[in-house]
Amino acid sequence: MDNGNLFSQREKDGLYKAIFSRRDVRSHFIKKKIPYSIISRILNAAHHAPSVGYSQPWNFILIKDEKIRNQIKNAFVTARDHSISMLNSDSDRQEKYKKLKLEGIIESDINICITYDVTRFGPFIIGRTSIPETGEYSVCCAVQNLWLAARVEGIGVGWVSIITIDDLRKILSIPSHVKPIAYLCIGYVSNFSDVPDLEKSGWLRRMNLSNLIYYERWGEAESESWSGLKELIKGVGTKNILTRKCDVI
Amino acid sequence: MDNGNLFSQREKDGLYKAIFSRRDVRSHFIKKKIPYSIISRILNAAHHAPSVGYSQPWNFILIKDEKIRNQIKNAFVTARDHSISMLNSDSDRQEKYKKLKLEGIIESDINICITYDVTRFGPFIIGRTSIPETGEYSVCCAVQNLWLAARVEGIGVGWVSIITIDDLRKILSIPSHVKPIAYLCIGYVSNFSDVPDLEKSGWLRRMNLSNLIYYERWGEAESESWSGLKELIKGVGTKNILTRKCDVI
Repeated sequence: MDNGNLFSQREKDGLYKAIFSRRDVRSHFIKKKIPYSIISRILNAAHHAPSVGYSQPWNFILIKDEKIRNQIKNAFVTARDHSISMLNSDSDRQEKYKKLKLEGIIESDINICITYDVTRFGPFIIGRTSIPETGEYSVCCAVQNLWLAARVEGIGVGWVSIITIDDLRKILSIPSHVKPIAYLCIGYVSNFSDVPDLEKSGWLRRMNLSNLIYYERWGEAESESWSGLKELIKGVGTKNILTRKCDVI
Repeated sequence: MDNGNLFSQREKDGLYKAIFSRRDVRSHFIKKKIPYSIISRILNAAHHAPSVGYSQPWNFILIKDEKIRNQIKNAFVTARDHSISMLNSDSDRQEKYKKLKLEGIIESDINICITYDVTRFGPFIIGRTSIPETGEYSVCCAVQNLWLAARVEGIGVGWVSIITIDDLRKILSIPSHVKPIAYLCIGYVSNFSDVPDLEKSGWLRRMNLSNLIYYERWGEAESESWSGLKELIKGVGTKNILTRKCDVI
């Protein structure tokens, strides 16, 4: 038996704990340098994401330069103001929005822009011929790998999407065949919130998973041939994993 | 100190091991039922992905019905044949393509189609106003969570993207405001390949991570202010994590 292919209970727990305790961080960054060894590891995690036709279409632009960060911050403020103006007819939500802290561009230790290069190994990519978007989707899987790896290293990540693609291209000199997919603020944090910030602030709540499941086709919320699964899904939680202390650090 | 916020070495290893040993599975599915308790867990992992503005825009269509799977398989064959015809001018690659096994729609225990609902909590979603694609990107993060959770449970996942969105919509009765993002074949496998199938078959190789990194802006492959990082990235690997046997199953 090849144990390398199996996961111990601890290893399994590590994955689930990372998934459940990962947060989109905007306000708890602290001044502490991330060692390069850890930056290497989280980039390597991203690089081991699945990619359509094994095209590995990602690049990683690492940013710490203050001037560039200030330009990004200004682009964020412009996009944020535009976004707030879209809520002119709903003053309650507009006020709530204004109070939200939505980025840590300057306070985080580093920023990383992860991009998609449509030309990599192309134009013919296996699996991308029917659904061209799968190229971008691959990059998103890389983002999620990086996010989870950062979490186990005790590092917070915030995905700032309130910036236009045009501004990102201009500021970071990204050519037209490359599309910025994610702009991430990355750094050590004072703490990881127990629930997402947008839940804490009362903006939205986590949905009930069992209401998101259909059987065999869209809209079929009940199914005899899947009987028993729904009850299990209703009972599935995160508490056991998150409340158990780990005994070996 | 809140240990729940920290990860033990074992827990960290579990995450990295999942990331490095995850495979896009097409040919090693075996006939063995996945317990519903495990299906619940991997769906719950997907549901804990990040989502733009906490919009949680995903649904999960669980499929085991043979008739539906056969329709999906037919749609795959049509899309595959079309894809192969695109390689008419490159007979070598065309022959290689024809030999590849690219899906496990029928052989896997279940299929799951993960969809994106643009109307969920909308139309105004925080963070989606500048880059509308971030809605779809959230669903991709859910796919990756599910994939990693399946891996630690010993279950293989293959993302079949050689099907048109129109066919998926028709066969699964998906309405026009909902977009299928990923069609996944999921089941126990005889083994997980040590390297991706497309690498094994000589289609493409894994790129060198250090060639994918830029500093401060696109195209800057060297940087004094990041000195030392490149050497570390060149040395970063997966071997230590993957070759160590786990002592507690």
